[in-house]
Order: sequence, then C-alpha cells, then structure tokens
Amino acid sequence: MPTDADRHAPPLVRDFPVTWPVQTRWTDNDMFGHLNNAVYYAIWDSVINAWVAREAGADPMTDAAIPLVAESSCRYLGELGYPQDLVAGLGVDRLGTASVTFRLCLYAAGSGPSVPVAAAGRWVHVYVDRATRRPVAIPDGARMAYESAR
Amino acid sequence: MPTDADRHAPPLVRDFPVTWPVQTRWTDNDMFGHLNNAVYYAIWDSVINAWVAREAGADPMTDAAIPLVAESSCRYLGELGYPQDLVAGLGVDRLGTASVTFRLCLYAAGSGPSVPVAAAGRWVHVYVDRATRRPVAIPDGARMAYESAR
Amino acid sequence: MPTDADRHAPPLVRDFPVTWPVQTRWTDNDMFGHLNNAVYYAIWDSVINAWVAREAGADPMTDAAIPLVAESSCRYLGELGYPQDLVAGLGVDRLGTASVTFRLCLYAAGSGPSVPVAAAGRWVHVYVDRATRRPVAIPDGARMAYESAR
Amino acid sequence: MPTDADRHAPPLVRDFPVTWPVQTRWTDNDMFGHLNNAVYYAIWDSVINAWVAREAGADPMTDAAIPLVAESSCRYLGELGYPQDLVAGLGVDRLGTASVTFRLCLYAAGSGPSVPVAAAGRWVHVYVDRATRRPVAIPDGARMAYESAR
Repeated sequence: MPTDADRHAPPLVRDFPVTWPVQTRWTDNDMFGHLNNAVYYAIWDSVINAWVAREAGADPMTDAAIPLVAESSCRYLGELGYPQDLVAGLGVDRLGTASVTFRLCLYAAGSGPSVPVAAAGRWVHVYVDRATRRPVAIPDGARMAYESAR
Repeated sequence: MPTDADRHAPPLVRDFPVTWPVQTRWTDNDMFGHLNNAVYYAIWDSVINAWVAREAGADPMTDAAIPLVAESSCRYLGELGYPQDLVAGLGVDRLGTASVTFRLCLYAAGSGPSVPVAAAGRWVHVYVDRATRRPVAIPDGARMAYESAR
Repeated sequence: MPTDADRHAPPLVRDFPVTWPVQTRWTDNDMFGHLNNAVYYAIWDSVINAWVAREAGADPMTDAAIPLVAESSCRYLGELGYPQDLVAGLGVDRLGTASVTFRLCLYAAGSGPSVPVAAAGRWVHVYVDRATRRPVAIPDGARMAYESAR
Repeated sequence: MPTDADRHAPPLVRDFPVTWPVQTRWTDNDMFGHLNNAVYYAIWDSVINAWVAREAGADPMTDAAIPLVAESSCRYLGELGYPQDLVAGLGVDRLGTASVTFRLCLYAAGSGPSVPVAAAGRWVHVYVDRATRRPVAIPDGARMAYESAR
C-alpha cells in the first residue's frame, strides 16, 4: 500500500509564492549531525507568524483572535543542517472562515527554482478567541495576506 | 471536502500499547500559554528513542544503523501545558524491512482508558547506514521491540 | 589569575535543600552526544518555576508580579546526557525585597549525598510588574517558599 | 554586598570586535512575551561555532579536538524578543593553551556603537580530545581566529 510520501512527487522550490530566509543554530542539529525533525516545525511556526506580522501586524500577547495549530505534517526528503543558510517557502492551499491551510517547504539557500525541496509540509491554523478558545473569523489583515499567497 | 482530521475520530488512551511518562518544561509553553506545536514532535522523538534504547540498547553516536524520520504528522485535539505531567503512548502500525510506522499520542497523566487523547500522531522511521545514509534492515533488537508493540 | 571556577570547589549533592527530578530529551543532546550547555539553564528555569508554582501557586499568563532573570551562570563540571534521569537541586543564597538569588545544581539520579554535582549554577530572579517591568516586592507565597529553602 | 552586575557598567555595542546577525524564532519567546533566558546561550553557542567554522573550518561530528563549555554567564540588561532581528557580538578576553574566554553580547539590529548592549555574557571554551575528553591544545586555525578577535 503506497504511503502519502510515495503518491506525491516532491514539490519544487518554485511552487511556493512566499519565501523567507532561515538561519540555523547549533542546537538545531541532533546527534546525527543534521537538523532535528522537530526543528522543521519550529522554523515554519516562526516563518508563518513573522510573515503575517509583517503583512498584517500581530501581537501574540494581546490579540483577541489567535491562530492555533490544528494539524501539521512533514515529509523529510533531504538532509539539512547547521550552519547552512536555509529558505522556507509557503503558499496557501485552502482559506476558510476560521482556518487556513498552508503548504510549506524548506531548502538550502541558493537552490534554483526547479530543485526539489528538502522538506515538504502541511499546516492548518485555526483562529480562536484568546479567552474562550472557540473558533472566530480570520482577521481582515491576515486574510488579505493569505489571499495574496494562494 | 473533509480533512483527515474530520474523517478520523480521536483515538483513546487505551489504543496505545506502550506508554511513557513525560515531564514538561517552562520553555515548552509558547506565548499562548500552552505546549508549542513543535514540542509534541520533540517529545515523541525522545520517547521513541528512549523506549527502543531501553528495550534493545542503542548508541546514537556510534550505531551503524540509525533511524531517521521520513514522515511525521500530528492532529492537535486538546491543549496541554507546563507544568502538567503528561503521558505519551505509542504503537506500531506497520513494520517493514527498513522502516517502521508508529501511531503516537499525548495526554494528561491520570486520564482514564476511554478518554480521547489530546494529540494524535503518525511517525515513520527509516533505518539507514550512518555513513552512506542508504536504507538498511532494522536491527534485530529494535525489530523485536517493534513486534511487541503492534 | 584564578577564575571563579578555580576558587570554588564543586558543591556536593547534599548542599541543596530542594531537589527535583528531571527527565532528559533526545534534543537535549547536541552533536557531541551530551547535554547542550544551554539546556542546563532551560532545566533550571523549569524547576524553579514548577517548584514555586507548587509551593505558592503561580499563573505566568496573568500574575501581576512576574520573575525575570537578571543574571545566570553555570560551571560545567561533568558530562550528562539523554536518556539519563537527572536531579536538579536548588537553595536560596540571598533574599531581597524584589530579588532572590539561587544556587543550583544538576546531577545524575542516584548520586549519593557526598558526590560532587555535575553542574553548579547561580541565578537571580527579580520580580517586576507585568505591565511596567518595574521591580516590585516578591509576593508573600513565593517569599515563604524561598525562606524555606535557605 | 554588591553583585557582579552592580560592579560593572553595561558594555557598549562598540566593545565587541566580531558581530554576527541573529534571527529570532517564535519559540524563543516564553510566556512573558520576550526572549527566554536560556535562548541567549543557545544563540551565543551558534554564533561562536559558526564564526569559528567560517574562519577556520570545523566539523563537529569528526574533529579530533572539540570545544566544550566549561563556564558561561549572562547579565540580562534589557528585553529582546521575536520577531526582532538581533546582533551578537564577541571578543576574546583570554587565550590559553587549551581554553579561550569570550566576552559576548546581544542587542537589537540597528543599535549605534554607543548603545549599551541588551545582554552581556562570558563564556569559556576548553578544547578536549573527542574520545578521552582530556584537554588538548587549541587547533591552529581556531587559535588564529581567536587572536584576531582580541
């Protein structure tokens, strides 16, 4: 039975409309000398939130509507590691009332547009009310950013 | 179109044959006051490897065959956070020549067997040669541990 | 010219009135196969805050007075690493109006009282107002906990 | 009795001969909405090692002589936080046969030369043999880099 990984060819660098430089850290590498698997998610979290903050403003400590992760996944297609400079890519695959689904990637800085990415991810953010944790509509500024990245 | 999350009911605490206590840390919580999404993966990485090391022995710095993560995913179904004590659960869903697929979960310590888990994951480890990074057979000791957790 | 490290003999396990079990993680080890130096501080942060929360209650997301770190230091005297079980120790060396100075340590679980610790630290917490970040008096509950650990 | 922090005026941006850009991450901020204290050390670790690797080459997975941290300390003088861009500064204060002592700092990108740094650190690296963990002479390439940063 084929897995999801078998069914899908790796996406290419050019498949992601938004790109963001990523600096690696000593502690990103684990005992195998490469980027630890959990670090990919920490990087994407940083990139998504920094990009939205730049496009639309955001204050995670006080905003009434905050994005929580409902689902995430990653296929690891090649090795990356400190002290490499990396690039993260993102695009919006689905945009609902309260949720947005990203396609994500990570690859070595300097990779050409036809190069397969080193990691391909999927990520669902659901906006919720800070206090009640019930879903709320995506704020207008963030929605405009997401529309621009389809 | 339903997502994977819609299609699957949350697994229950009793669905995981191996359980492991998990201590949380101050830095596990992010600005939203709960366990950051990437931390779930870091926890599962620690639990899988500590369990295999206990069952079969393992030295990540010298073993000829090392397990790399090929795919991982998580559905976040409830909130967890420091300073809670947690429990991670794991089971083996598929066992191939070079790869093993785990189902994983995380929940608050003290949850009864019929309680839905707070997070449900999937994780594929592929064993590779340390030097060449080519797939190799799962070592016998680890295979026995995996067989026991089906 | 002697450094601080030369001047002080390593403290012993028995020199710390409060002890706390510490679980290690895969990602705590760096490429040298041992606990990364920054992890010692993350562990002490978790232990101090979990201990105070247990003794006195604390909600880091809403408390009016919050403890910020003004200074920290560590002497690394022996190697520790995942998947070891560890113990952290703490004691209060100075207790002021707004600040408290801890002595800290970390060592392998099961070490006897006369064993030198594997790491010895010092840590100054200053309580500040959440909004203004100006120093404020240590709350009564926390002060009682600190008094008990001199 | 004055602490070290009282005795020393904060160093200034211009007091550090080597500077390095630092990108922050979502998970660097803790529940107080600012850079967690342990992250400062993780950043310095990354900067020291990336700088030496660029100047002198280094492979942490195979080099016979590896630098271990013997002591570290930090005074936190101002708040920093994601998504700020930061700069780390370093200088060499003492250079022995097997050990090197750094002065370190961290501050917001764009700070002028006379601005006090937001954090000031001290860090002792001791080179040891990978296998025996006994002190060895600092390799020539690294020594030249350290000489250049006095």
